[in-house]
Amino acid sequence: MKIASIDTYDVRFPTSRELDGSDAMNPDPDYSAAYVVITADTGGQGHGFTFTIGRGNEVCRAAIEALAPLVIGQSVDDLGEFAKRLTHDSQIRWLGPEKGVVHLAAAALINAAWDLAATAAGKPVWQFLADLPPEQVVDLVDWRYLSDALGPAEALDMLHAARPGRQERIEQLRRHGYPAYTTSPGWLGYSDDKLVRLAGEAVTDGYRQIKLKVGHDLDDDIRRMRLARDTVGDGIRIAVDANQRWDVDEAVRWMTALAPYDPWWIEEPTSPDDILGHAAVRKALRPSGIRVATGEHVQNRIVFKQLLQADAVDIVQIDACRVAGVNENIAILLLAAKFGRPVCPHAGGVGLCELVQHLSMFDFVAVSGSLQDRVIEYVDHLHEHFVDPVVIRDGAYRLPEAPGFSARMRPGTLHRFAFPDGPEWA
Amino acid sequence: MKIASIDTYDVRFPTSRELDGSDAMNPDPDYSAAYVVITADTGGQGHGFTFTIGRGNEVCRAAIEALAPLVIGQSVDDLGEFAKRLTHDSQIRWLGPEKGVVHLAAAALINAAWDLAATAAGKPVWQFLADLPPEQVVDLVDWRYLSDALGPAEALDMLHAARPGRQERIEQLRRHGYPAYTTSPGWLGYSDDKLVRLAGEAVTDGYRQIKLKVGHDLDDDIRRMRLARDTVGDGIRIAVDANQRWDVDEAVRWMTALAPYDPWWIEEPTSPDDILGHAAVRKALRPSGIRVATGEHVQNRIVFKQLLQADAVDIVQIDACRVAGVNENIAILLLAAKFGRPVCPHAGGVGLCELVQHLSMFDFVAVSGSLQDRVIEYVDHLHEHFVDPVVIRDGAYRLPEAPGFSARMRPGTLHRFAFPDGPEWA
Repeated sequence: MKIASIDTYDVRFPTSRELDGSDAMNPDPDYSAAYVVITADTGGQGHGFTFTIGRGNEVCRAAIEALAPLVIGQSVDDLGEFAKRLTHDSQIRWLGPEKGVVHLAAAALINAAWDLAATAAGKPVWQFLADLPPEQVVDLVDWRYLSDALGPAEALDMLHAARPGRQERIEQLRRHGYPAYTTSPGWLGYSDDKLVRLAGEAVTDGYRQIKLKVGHDLDDDIRRMRLARDTVGDGIRIAVDANQRWDVDEAVRWMTALAPYDPWWIEEPTSPDDILGHAAVRKALRPSGIRVATGEHVQNRIVFKQLLQADAVDIVQIDACRVAGVNENIAILLLAAKFGRPVCPHAGGVGLCELVQHLSMFDFVAVSGSLQDRVIEYVDHLHEHFVDPVVIRDGAYRLPEAPGFSARMRPGTLHRFAFPDGPEWA
Repeated sequence: MKIASIDTYDVRFPTSRELDGSDAMNPDPDYSAAYVVITADTGGQGHGFTFTIGRGNEVCRAAIEALAPLVIGQSVDDLGEFAKRLTHDSQIRWLGPEKGVVHLAAAALINAAWDLAATAAGKPVWQFLADLPPEQVVDLVDWRYLSDALGPAEALDMLHAARPGRQERIEQLRRHGYPAYTTSPGWLGYSDDKLVRLAGEAVTDGYRQIKLKVGHDLDDDIRRMRLARDTVGDGIRIAVDANQRWDVDEAVRWMTALAPYDPWWIEEPTSPDDILGHAAVRKALRPSGIRVATGEHVQNRIVFKQLLQADAVDIVQIDACRVAGVNENIAILLLAAKFGRPVCPHAGGVGLCELVQHLSMFDFVAVSGSLQDRVIEYVDHLHEHFVDPVVIRDGAYRLPEAPGFSARMRPGTLHRFAFPDGPEWA
């Protein structure tokens, strides 16, 4: 099966009107997708996208189009080679390497290829991956720059070791789903009343963890954290997320002030590029029991490798579109398993929940084999735009059963929210 | 003075035809610039660009245009605020943050603003910077994420401490220039004969350091290194550059094999993102006396900070366009001075020599005050396209005296090499 053509779309949702998604660094995001449809010579299609928060979405779309000549006419039968072709082109690599816009664009195309291949196989992506022999899974990864932490031989051993019990784990997912936490109560632009109401509803809905945005004003954060804790009680985990707002010392001071309310983790305390900074924050917060989490802006497997080598994070937060799609996320799942750290994906935005559920399900079935301290982020926005949206019940993601990557937006959405000429924006 | 309009250009030179610039990771670069001209309400102009190696240059141009609404109508009287406006826009920041295409684009605009401001002041950029009071220099820097290594108060002390002797240093530059090294002999695509001839010419021309590309084939590298050493003798430094070709262990093995020929530094032994990897390579190579250098692909000040904190590099290689232009490079110069490491800029490409000479001259006059082990890369390509090209004599960059950033390409060049419709490409 070869790729015959691609079509790209700039899709934007005016989420800033309601302050959905507002945090200390991103006060007014318009959740957006640089969206691509690839059409195979068989007539089959694969859909993929990368997530942005508005301005600059057109630059990601331009980058997808810059990569198009590398994929037109290419086979998707070997998705390891397919992914490397996109990240190894020497001229385009200069613009990263393996980071920023060109990597976001590669993610869109690589994820679209997975949607195409899994759809053609009649399987959801998590199952398509889990059914691959371990040797083929290892070949999906670009091992360059990883050998001082993990190589293909050890990864193969890990995958073989994870095989027993897989059928039981699939059955467990089918019965109980994969645990979720919700960020819906915690946006910084919401009033106290809305926070309290949504936090209470989260517990009623079965969530065992919620998340609050912090980092704009310490007094506000103390008040909001206290309100949230009073609402949900001691048995529910409350994670907090600073969205890169702080320097190292400030992160430690701020989180020490929030420690009495028992935050489960602090997410993105500082720059996602600051491996040593995260390590310093983690070390300083150990006495208070607050975990350090990061990853939604971590640019590639090389930085994840170092976050693990440097003991800088307790929680690994993969993002479906920030790194080079399924392939690079498999590398990160393997690294996290090697270092014994749970993966709790970043989601929300638009379509990220739909994608990451497949990666976490695959991780449980075929890599880590564990749900211990593992939760997938959930935000209840924009799912109505997808043909096969996530299903959440009792605070858990239901196992997706439809073929593909759950990535397809409804045709009406691609039309209505097209930027800048669709009816919503014109 | 406010910015009234901007014009962008996609300029590409067909350098791959002669294998100029060929190395182990970049076999066939077409040196290119995403070029911008800003026009002020005074009618004055500033020129800037970011350097790429061909495909994807149009994506950088699209990113410059995405940033344009942030600068049109803005004052360039406070270039600290101007630069932060470009790197802090929350929606566009999502596409980095502060890395990759959007950062390359910010560099083009920020450098153009410096060209505009220095030209209006009638001074070359190095002097325009050196004439600023230290308080204003400190305000040019975005200090976010740096405070665990260096803050504005300490930087101010450093700048004040560097003031004595500045006039003598300027006179020294005017008489002797700033030492250069040349990469012209060492491209991987050149024959042994060409390597030997160009290495000999380099010594005759007054260079005390040359550089060879390595990393494609070890036997070839041993032979080329031996030929070069035999040609230049023991008194000339030979740096080598792997352009990110290796994993950590491979870097150590390869360089140990080249150690008998006394390489001065190994540049980019592995991924530019791998701070801990560089630290491991450096530690392993200490007994052989080989220094570790990196920086041309280091994405921002936060990664430079960690390379210094982790003792991962001996040599700091700034790039004029990879980070956010003059402003972020001032942060990096200050960090390098704080940690006592020499800055040896990456140059070559197209126009990079023209830009970095100003940064190194400023460093010598106003920051580090030292030329010890400091050299600016020089490659003798494409200078004829500039209105005010660098002048090299006796292996040294002559002090630029014309107002501005030496950044302006000739109008005929912007026309002839326009991609894809200029006469050279059509």
